[in-house]
Amino acid sequence: MARIVLKFGGTSVADIERIRTVARIVQREVADGHEVAVVVSAMAGVTNQLASWTTEISRMHDAREYDAVVTSGEQVTSGLLALALQDFGIEARSWLAWQLPFRTDGVHGNARIDAIATDGIGERLTRGQVAVVAGFQGLGPDNRLTTLGRGGSDTSAVALAAALAADRCDIYTDVDGVYTCDPRIVTGARKIDRITYEEMLELASQGARVLHPRSVALAMRYAVRLQVLSSFSSAPGTLVVGEEEIMEQQSVTGIAYSPDEAKITLRAVRDRPGVAGTIFGALADAAINVDMIVQNVSEDGETTDLTFTVSRSDLDRAVPVLKRLTDEIGFTDVLADASVAKISVVGVGMRSQPGVAKIMFQTLADRGINIEVISTSEIKVSVLIADDYTELALRALHTAYGLDMAS
Amino acid sequence: MARIVLKFGGTSVADIERIRTVARIVQREVADGHEVAVVVSAMAGVTNQLASWTTEISRMHDAREYDAVVTSGEQVTSGLLALALQDFGIEARSWLAWQLPFRTDGVHGNARIDAIATDGIGERLTRGQVAVVAGFQGLGPDNRLTTLGRGGSDTSAVALAAALAADRCDIYTDVDGVYTCDPRIVTGARKIDRITYEEMLELASQGARVLHPRSVALAMRYAVRLQVLSSFSSAPGTLVVGEEEIMEQQSVTGIAYSPDEAKITLRAVRDRPGVAGTIFGALADAAINVDMIVQNVSEDGETTDLTFTVSRSDLDRAVPVLKRLTDEIGFTDVLADASVAKISVVGVGMRSQPGVAKIMFQTLADRGINIEVISTSEIKVSVLIADDYTELALRALHTAYGLDMAS
Repeated sequence: MARIVLKFGGTSVADIERIRTVARIVQREVADGHEVAVVVSAMAGVTNQLASWTTEISRMHDAREYDAVVTSGEQVTSGLLALALQDFGIEARSWLAWQLPFRTDGVHGNARIDAIATDGIGERLTRGQVAVVAGFQGLGPDNRLTTLGRGGSDTSAVALAAALAADRCDIYTDVDGVYTCDPRIVTGARKIDRITYEEMLELASQGARVLHPRSVALAMRYAVRLQVLSSFSSAPGTLVVGEEEIMEQQSVTGIAYSPDEAKITLRAVRDRPGVAGTIFGALADAAINVDMIVQNVSEDGETTDLTFTVSRSDLDRAVPVLKRLTDEIGFTDVLADASVAKISVVGVGMRSQPGVAKIMFQTLADRGINIEVISTSEIKVSVLIADDYTELALRALHTAYGLDMAS
Repeated sequence: MARIVLKFGGTSVADIERIRTVARIVQREVADGHEVAVVVSAMAGVTNQLASWTTEISRMHDAREYDAVVTSGEQVTSGLLALALQDFGIEARSWLAWQLPFRTDGVHGNARIDAIATDGIGERLTRGQVAVVAGFQGLGPDNRLTTLGRGGSDTSAVALAAALAADRCDIYTDVDGVYTCDPRIVTGARKIDRITYEEMLELASQGARVLHPRSVALAMRYAVRLQVLSSFSSAPGTLVVGEEEIMEQQSVTGIAYSPDEAKITLRAVRDRPGVAGTIFGALADAAINVDMIVQNVSEDGETTDLTFTVSRSDLDRAVPVLKRLTDEIGFTDVLADASVAKISVVGVGMRSQPGVAKIMFQTLADRGINIEVISTSEIKVSVLIADDYTELALRALHTAYGLDMAS
């Protein structure tokens, strides 16, 4: 007997028939004797529809009203899944954020979780009642509904699993696990059986879309055993666990890519202390995240080129922010390039196995792919390349690191 | 300066453009210096869609989950209308039942209102903030959402107006007031400027669909000045007020009809004490409402015919209930007739002006329309006729009582 939290995303609860399929999955876990809490997203498309109404009706929308509107989506699916379970003879009830309560801070639209009260829900789980919890939503200090931002329902599920001291948190989605690379691009990509939190966090942060980095970070912090699997197939999924649970570390576990990148180069920046702080401070004030940063060695001792990346969607806002600094900082030009992609190889094994970066640079060079920016962490090497080369680079690297499926 | 409650039904908030129109109506009231609370229904069609999902997923649905699902509709419109008002520069916020709280009993799907806490909302109204309250929903003693049953949003609005001691409660709908008769049938029907609670209650109970009887009864009890008007036109509506506010009483104020009737006759019932109690007790146990009842004088002193009406939708359930009583009560036959309609003439003036019933019977007789059952109250005469004659009867009576518009 275990206590488990299952989470089902929008495509898994897209219509009544899919909700019944989900109920059957829950039924199996109940039949196995487990205590089951389920976290659900809104039916596929519903959140987008609701969100688009809020922007249609008011361009500068009040995030508190946005939250009141969009949280209705998860409310509907939680009630419907509870009904589907009851129809299968399983005792079940829906839980809304304000009923638990699932407390967050007051940052509407992107709230952080403060505390989850589990007395009521825990007592009912013990009695064998399935709890169906509306994901993505919380109760703010103003007694109004909040939402957790992107990937919110995954975060709800992991946080609930931590609060309930669950033995496992299964994230059901429309893919059957985490792959060594995007299988739509690399046909030889393999499903990963087990991956560490750190690797999953890097892959998710570098563009792999299967889990949101925030939910992975939360799972790591509270040691919640995560499993990613599909509600559309019964294939085993990917377990996300602590490093101690994985015997043999590969040097590279997976390869991620992000097409949502843009490169900015400031030419001939005056090379003196405080310049970088001014530039990145101005971008931060405009809520623009900067990712990779390279500052060339100053050739003449007076000026240098500064290159960094931002989200492609932020590029149009970033350029005028920078141009306003021209007089203060002194640079000759702002060059913007939206035709770049970031490729990242990730693996905890690279800590003990040197040479991972070298293989990457050599493999790309052999294909004539120019590396524009490099950034590394302990378990990751990322490079920025022209985005036309994305698929070629991914396939070449996947083979070079020995990740291809045995055919 | 007055404090007013406005209520908008589903067709009035059917889409974003309609919600903007509603916001303009609210804006006018705010510009006039009033404190405004608004009660909204779900967008037209939404409640039906949500309700049909609950029945599709589980035939014996849990009313608590039904309530959790369907209340999401009003949640969406309350948030959207608050946004639309903000976009017009009006301070506004949405209120959900659990936030007020708007407390009801625990009869999910058809809850009765217990108490409405108005401290928070009242304080903000005084400060000039518009309150947009989700109609139809309440908070039950189990800390779960309830719904108020049919006509629930009208009831929400009237109850809120009573709790807030509002000067007026305007019910916006898709018709511009209460008419002397259904204008789709009687082309000469006139809009009524003022009508008493009692008359409105009788008309609503006898088939006029513009207001639900429950909301009228509540308005009468708490002396809430009701106004029925259209969000689609700026024509003045109908005021529903106390009798003392209407100087001249017409003998007949309006004529209602109900096509949803069925007649049952039990032939040769043994005429002895307790028989009627047994019959109507059995129907009540099956949750079947009986409306008009006629028992003929016993001809032979031993048996009599008993005739009564039920909702047409209950007829198929009523007949077997009655047949099971054959041995106990002793009657020779159960005759069922679903092809009947009830026509009712209503007016407080008939208390002081005799002859109203006589005009009705004479007018119908002149047209060759047979009256099958008659029932009366102090301010109403209802007759049951063959439903083929409905339109003919309504037009003839409308003329006979002098209600036709001057052409």
